[in-house]
Amino acid sequence: MFFERIYEKGLAQASYIIGCQATKEAIVIDPKRDIDTYLQIAERENLGITHITETHIHADFLSGTLELAKATGAKIYLSDEGGNDWQYQFQHIGLKENDSIKVGNLKLQVIYTPGHTPEHISFLLTDTPASAKPVMIFTGDFVFVGDVGRPDLLEKAAGIEGTMVEGARQMFKSLKKFKSLPDYIQVWPGHGAGSACGKALGAVPGSTVGYEKLSNWAMKIEDEKHFINTLLEGQPEPPKYFAKMKKLNKTGSKIIGIPQHPKKISVDDFRKDLNENFQIVDTRDKLSFAGGHIKGSLNIQDNNSFSTWAGWMLDYNKPVVLIASDHRANFLQRALIRIGMDNLEGYIPDIEKLEVSGIKMEILNQIGTEELNNQSSEYRVIDVRSYTEFDQAHIPDSVNIHAGYFEKYINEINPDEKLVIYCTSGDRSAIAASFLLKKGYKNVFNLSGGINAWVQAGYKIEKESKVELGITTG
Amino acid sequence: MFFERIYEKGLAQASYIIGCQATKEAIVIDPKRDIDTYLQIAERENLGITHITETHIHADFLSGTLELAKATGAKIYLSDEGGNDWQYQFQHIGLKENDSIKVGNLKLQVIYTPGHTPEHISFLLTDTPASAKPVMIFTGDFVFVGDVGRPDLLEKAAGIEGTMVEGARQMFKSLKKFKSLPDYIQVWPGHGAGSACGKALGAVPGSTVGYEKLSNWAMKIEDEKHFINTLLEGQPEPPKYFAKMKKLNKTGSKIIGIPQHPKKISVDDFRKDLNENFQIVDTRDKLSFAGGHIKGSLNIQDNNSFSTWAGWMLDYNKPVVLIASDHRANFLQRALIRIGMDNLEGYIPDIEKLEVSGIKMEILNQIGTEELNNQSSEYRVIDVRSYTEFDQAHIPDSVNIHAGYFEKYINEINPDEKLVIYCTSGDRSAIAASFLLKKGYKNVFNLSGGINAWVQAGYKIEKESKVELGITTG
Amino acid sequence: MFFERIYEKGLAQASYIIGCQATKEAIVIDPKRDIDTYLQIAERENLGITHITETHIHADFLSGTLELAKATGAKIYLSDEGGNDWQYQFQHIGLKENDSIKVGNLKLQVIYTPGHTPEHISFLLTDTPASAKPVMIFTGDFVFVGDVGRPDLLEKAAGIEGTMVEGARQMFKSLKKFKSLPDYIQVWPGHGAGSACGKALGAVPGSTVGYEKLSNWAMKIEDEKHFINTLLEGQPEPPKYFAKMKKLNKTGSKIIGIPQHPKKISVDDFRKDLNENFQIVDTRDKLSFAGGHIKGSLNIQDNNSFSTWAGWMLDYNKPVVLIASDHRANFLQRALIRIGMDNLEGYIPDIEKLEVSGIKMEILNQIGTEELNNQSSEYRVIDVRSYTEFDQAHIPDSVNIHAGYFEKYINEINPDEKLVIYCTSGDRSAIAASFLLKKGYKNVFNLSGGINAWVQAGYKIEKESKVELGITTG
Amino acid sequence: MFFERIYEKGLAQASYIIGCQATKEAIVIDPKRDIDTYLQIAERENLGITHITETHIHADFLSGTLELAKATGAKIYLSDEGGNDWQYQFQHIGLKENDSIKVGNLKLQVIYTPGHTPEHISFLLTDTPASAKPVMIFTGDFVFVGDVGRPDLLEKAAGIEGTMVEGARQMFKSLKKFKSLPDYIQVWPGHGAGSACGKALGAVPGSTVGYEKLSNWAMKIEDEKHFINTLLEGQPEPPKYFAKMKKLNKTGSKIIGIPQHPKKISVDDFRKDLNENFQIVDTRDKLSFAGGHIKGSLNIQDNNSFSTWAGWMLDYNKPVVLIASDHRANFLQRALIRIGMDNLEGYIPDIEKLEVSGIKMEILNQIGTEELNNQSSEYRVIDVRSYTEFDQAHIPDSVNIHAGYFEKYINEINPDEKLVIYCTSGDRSAIAASFLLKKGYKNVFNLSGGINAWVQAGYKIEKESKVELGITTG
Repeated sequence: MFFERIYEKGLAQASYIIGCQATKEAIVIDPKRDIDTYLQIAERENLGITHITETHIHADFLSGTLELAKATGAKIYLSDEGGNDWQYQFQHIGLKENDSIKVGNLKLQVIYTPGHTPEHISFLLTDTPASAKPVMIFTGDFVFVGDVGRPDLLEKAAGIEGTMVEGARQMFKSLKKFKSLPDYIQVWPGHGAGSACGKALGAVPGSTVGYEKLSNWAMKIEDEKHFINTLLEGQPEPPKYFAKMKKLNKTGSKIIGIPQHPKKISVDDFRKDLNENFQIVDTRDKLSFAGGHIKGSLNIQDNNSFSTWAGWMLDYNKPVVLIASDHRANFLQRALIRIGMDNLEGYIPDIEKLEVSGIKMEILNQIGTEELNNQSSEYRVIDVRSYTEFDQAHIPDSVNIHAGYFEKYINEINPDEKLVIYCTSGDRSAIAASFLLKKGYKNVFNLSGGINAWVQAGYKIEKESKVELGITTG
Repeated sequence: MFFERIYEKGLAQASYIIGCQATKEAIVIDPKRDIDTYLQIAERENLGITHITETHIHADFLSGTLELAKATGAKIYLSDEGGNDWQYQFQHIGLKENDSIKVGNLKLQVIYTPGHTPEHISFLLTDTPASAKPVMIFTGDFVFVGDVGRPDLLEKAAGIEGTMVEGARQMFKSLKKFKSLPDYIQVWPGHGAGSACGKALGAVPGSTVGYEKLSNWAMKIEDEKHFINTLLEGQPEPPKYFAKMKKLNKTGSKIIGIPQHPKKISVDDFRKDLNENFQIVDTRDKLSFAGGHIKGSLNIQDNNSFSTWAGWMLDYNKPVVLIASDHRANFLQRALIRIGMDNLEGYIPDIEKLEVSGIKMEILNQIGTEELNNQSSEYRVIDVRSYTEFDQAHIPDSVNIHAGYFEKYINEINPDEKLVIYCTSGDRSAIAASFLLKKGYKNVFNLSGGINAWVQAGYKIEKESKVELGITTG
Repeated sequence: MFFERIYEKGLAQASYIIGCQATKEAIVIDPKRDIDTYLQIAERENLGITHITETHIHADFLSGTLELAKATGAKIYLSDEGGNDWQYQFQHIGLKENDSIKVGNLKLQVIYTPGHTPEHISFLLTDTPASAKPVMIFTGDFVFVGDVGRPDLLEKAAGIEGTMVEGARQMFKSLKKFKSLPDYIQVWPGHGAGSACGKALGAVPGSTVGYEKLSNWAMKIEDEKHFINTLLEGQPEPPKYFAKMKKLNKTGSKIIGIPQHPKKISVDDFRKDLNENFQIVDTRDKLSFAGGHIKGSLNIQDNNSFSTWAGWMLDYNKPVVLIASDHRANFLQRALIRIGMDNLEGYIPDIEKLEVSGIKMEILNQIGTEELNNQSSEYRVIDVRSYTEFDQAHIPDSVNIHAGYFEKYINEINPDEKLVIYCTSGDRSAIAASFLLKKGYKNVFNLSGGINAWVQAGYKIEKESKVELGITTG
Repeated sequence: MFFERIYEKGLAQASYIIGCQATKEAIVIDPKRDIDTYLQIAERENLGITHITETHIHADFLSGTLELAKATGAKIYLSDEGGNDWQYQFQHIGLKENDSIKVGNLKLQVIYTPGHTPEHISFLLTDTPASAKPVMIFTGDFVFVGDVGRPDLLEKAAGIEGTMVEGARQMFKSLKKFKSLPDYIQVWPGHGAGSACGKALGAVPGSTVGYEKLSNWAMKIEDEKHFINTLLEGQPEPPKYFAKMKKLNKTGSKIIGIPQHPKKISVDDFRKDLNENFQIVDTRDKLSFAGGHIKGSLNIQDNNSFSTWAGWMLDYNKPVVLIASDHRANFLQRALIRIGMDNLEGYIPDIEKLEVSGIKMEILNQIGTEELNNQSSEYRVIDVRSYTEFDQAHIPDSVNIHAGYFEKYINEINPDEKLVIYCTSGDRSAIAASFLLKKGYKNVFNLSGGINAWVQAGYKIEKESKVELGITTG
């Protein structure tokens, strides 16, 4: 048996390719959309991709199932569980509880495990030449290392009311199934640390049924109500783009092929009114953006969170222009494509040429921790982290508005105040602050080094919080 | 907890780095000698390497423990079990059964698991913040996925008589310990498929205690004698260099630092008598070598078996000259260094310049399957694979001499016969055939495509074998 | 003024980009077909390509004029001299003697310089801000460093009879014009050493009018008849593809855009009868080809002569499959495109996979100089270099057939003889020998190291030659 | 004859390698210090470097002569002209007027051409197989394309008084020699556009004697006094490090070998007081520096002027720490080594890690053109370009202090004023402004886009200037 885990850091997402070396067949579970990764592995291992499956309709990335099927001719196997509202709307071979997929000498048995979503299934893999007993389970967003999938996404992200508690109840039931599996089975989930699909995901890639029973908080609560309350409590804010992913993954995403290098936009092509028609995303580091950027551009840095923040902040209907170097443009294009953002107009590699050609550079003010501490009464301080982070520790007198909610709560932010924006180390606050600049705010300051630097400097923090008008305050 | 498996394909060897993110400490288990791999991971993950350990005195590669300790200042923890003959002879903190190493909030408990070697230990890891129960075990060459370590290396490779059966007996006992562990524990061994340290290693990187109990042949035999016989039966021939590794790893290997790019040897520098003073290793593909090579050079191709075959065929006391391209020279140097072969003189990137300058190119004859089948009586056919492969299927009337034993059995090979050399697909036979050319044999033919092509063409094969004069015949 | 010479080694061809930094305009003279080179230079230098011109209708490569005009919108300026038969048949601004092109503050004055071709023009460049006097002349295939263009190509390559002597006469006249230019003018020709467009091109990139008058053989002959005889004497054989280039460059070549990475052909896609429908070009080094290659493939090595030999040996109407590595495939595709060979089917990176899968590998015999010398009577020896090289020195009793003429003279080559093929160092003989194998010849031997190795070994050579039946003999 | 010009953009410096293909010997003229460039060319062309020479004792870069001689064993040929004060103080073969160097069939005849320096020689090259007449002249810093070398460096940079006028007088005389050469000779100078060794160097790499006579201003002045005045007028400020180069090139520079990758400095290694012991050079782009930098660091951007500005601004006696990415660190190290700055301590690739770890980031204020225009009375405006640039056009009421003289004139700059610093586009002003911040100035503003953006916006400029107190004012 061949087994490889493919981990996409920007989505904290794991897909799997498993192959039978005897028959040279292979299956991919939960492919991402830039599918050349799988084609290359298959070629290297002398395998053909003949089967594709998914654990559920994903919310956090656009599935590569159709793309990969197009490229390989592989058959598509998808859940037909979950009821009428949760049926995939493109051609596939339907899977129900206890069905199984045969891939050469390998057998993947379907276990229906709703909770995260109504149609969610898991796959219990048996490597028949080695043993008649199963060797591992692929749990998708059902069981993670140290956590379980959140059942509130449909309600919070897709706006389908009433599904949250029902999902939690299903999860409780599905976990009983999980706990009944033999302890020794390896567990390979769909996400690692950093995904918004669970709240406490561990950094170790895989686990076992037995160890999760010992260490996973969700396995230890025997009372259903207590479980439901605990599960729904403290879930991170779901990114805005999840609703769109959900829909596209159900109806079938567009086939785009292997992405080519994006178009470079020359200084001459760049018109001063470009930001009327396009969204400019400045992917440089936050210090560079602070030092000078094009008016109206958003500072979403080129790091592991790029896909997620693009999903939070950008409009799917407006073409995107990236400020990015030649050698990163292709990668960033992929990061957009993975969440279905296919409308990249091009990229601008050299912002300094724009400056000299007369395009005005805006700056983003920064404020040091010392200055803020000394003159805190002059500033309105906004913490843009998640409310759970805020709840644990925040700068005194700050309010909490998650960076992704700035559009929603813009009216609560007074343009006449001097605003200090902060997060852990300054990355998310750069996004939020650039959003305010785009909206025409003038007195915006990014806290240099974030609350990390504040703590390092020994200044006071507070711990309690209360929510008022949709905004959390200390 | 941070966990990463580092897999060196050329040795089929796994090392591990495990870190405590809270205290930023990390431990490396069984480091290979080119240690920059670990330094880079630690830097990326913001960890410091503070502890280094080994499961046992390795035979198949030179340990990077001293090298890594020098570069990081980390403390060295090594087995003090196994008796006087198996004590590491350089400074370390000694480990005995039930001792444990603390790495921040992580605890590695020592389990004494002799069998593969007398001093062999395993590490049961507990991630204390997650659970008080252990999460995984690092088994080194004790338990592999689907196999166990071989106890015959000391006797066969290092020549220490009588240790083979005693080792098998210890292994039987150690396995009892293993079987008493909870089923759910993850098992991370020191080798993957392709290593000469076991005979049936699986291609899946890790396993669990419970699954091994179900699927691993060695766990299923309850009778000690039967176990010992089965374990010792059919073990592959241990590479010649194992004896040297064993000794160096016990006494302590030389510190060499991060390898720099090796010296390029120009045509002018190359003298016709270079192969008097040096060993020339031609790492080009076998077709290129067949088409023309320097007289006296050995054809060890640049593939995943390079380290192993270098260890089989080369003399540690003679400087090596590689025929290799500029962009592979550094990698191949590392492949040599990993087995302690530090005396690389340099490399020659362009063999055609030598040809034009008057250095005579030798060719290696090739023979097609059809021709051999038609005129088989004219040739003496030698199978250079392991005797187990030979036993399963071979060309009729062929004899089996493992490629690594050609030096030993050279007198059994008649230079006056027309010799056809073959293996699975032609790689090992190229090594063996080039060895014969080096020894002055004239009538040497490599079977194009090996037994694979023979089988594809539909020619007859045989299955039984008998051993005579140290040589296996059909 | 900005000035850059772009030298394409595979064609020994020089193109030029000259720009006016004040107005940011630039002109390209004699562009090659893979035009991204020019786009990149223009971008780097902050110039726009606004003008494109050619010195003449090229025979040795496909012009990139239309391609570049499409990509940039630049205007095309071409010679309208030379009479009805030599008019470009696509839209352009016509140029006649004394016309000039203005590129910002630069002026390129047209000088009509027929001889190499009837429509050939040169450009006298004046950098008006620096001086009212011209600074350099772009001579295309009129005057080279140390040589002049050959007037025999139309007759020999394109089959237009009677043009050879007339061309030589025009060249004599054009040179008078050249000699009347001021000595100090820099001369930038269209070719460097190694082109088939002249016979004695120097290795220094540029020259001056005065120095050419001193050192160029063609400037020193005052008698017209003597000049014509000398010029026509000893010209190298023109590659077969020149006729096609000539035609396409006159009528206008196809626009193909920037070439993408070619298609990789997997082992499975490769069928045994592929060489029925395709031409397989094995671009590996000659030793690799000799060691094992696909039956029917031609060995045109990946070196500076690849384009030229592809033009000699390949059929424009049959799709091409390359044996080439992943990282060279794109470059080789360009080398084909430069001579208008656009029908690349794909490439096969790993020929050894084919061998194991049962595709029979053929070998190309090699013979050492010593063996040939000892048993020369047994072999028919064919020298495949140009007849001038043969005339200077050859192996005794060899006959000369230029490698590019093997198809033409195939009937003169006896398949029943043992044939030794040689050239300078074995590259061209590998092409010719592989051609014979493709035609079904069995007894073909490539002389290892060529005549270079023969001379190094101290064996006898001969110098005189006579021509018989279209074949030159010693 | 083989000929290649090696152009080092960061110094605008040209060196040459010329080889005789018949004897495989080659000479290098004016090598730079990172000599692997020459070794690679020689290897590629199958030549050995057997001779090394220089046109004069360089002031703008550290010569690679000794380094190259060490690596190749080549003989060193140097000028013995110029009198006692200008004798090279290390072993060499002395050259005087009319001596010649033979490199195989090539002959380089020495012409004594003082003016730029007292010992300056040029080389008239004859390619004897092509013609008995010379083909080209290597003029070093004597004659450039469109200009001549400046004779004032010794006085201005090395402080040797009275040499300026004497040098100009020698230059006048040497030019007479040059003008007597045949027009057709190619001229290959030691610098291209952008060097501080001449004032009006053209962008075309080479020229001819005849064309220079027509177009070079210096050739056209027949009156000695007029010539001297014109030559000395308007020379750019010589970089501060020239004096040191001069001395080292005379006495012999240290052999350092091929530079290895510099040391990476981790966040942990970085101590807050690092800038007490080291000079921190932040090579990021100016916007990044403006957005946040380490207190006390200088912003010398990684562009073609890096070497020169490092030479202006840095202290040779203090170790340097670079802020630079992993993939640029090696290049920047070379840029330092080329001017003899060998004391690189290491580099810091990730400044944001420092920010989070509590190192305070300083910002550099920027001011837009509109704001400056509206409130110009509030600011003291300093132009940091050369005085000739200032003289041509500057912002009204600005004063001119060359960025390289800030240390010298620091007392003239009032720390209590709000200072706006500008240059052409903001690069040099970033250097000067960062210097002021380092000195503790608080109210420093960099003009975004420089005078280019000012002009683009249509604001008023002034043209006249007067000098007062060593500072030029409008």
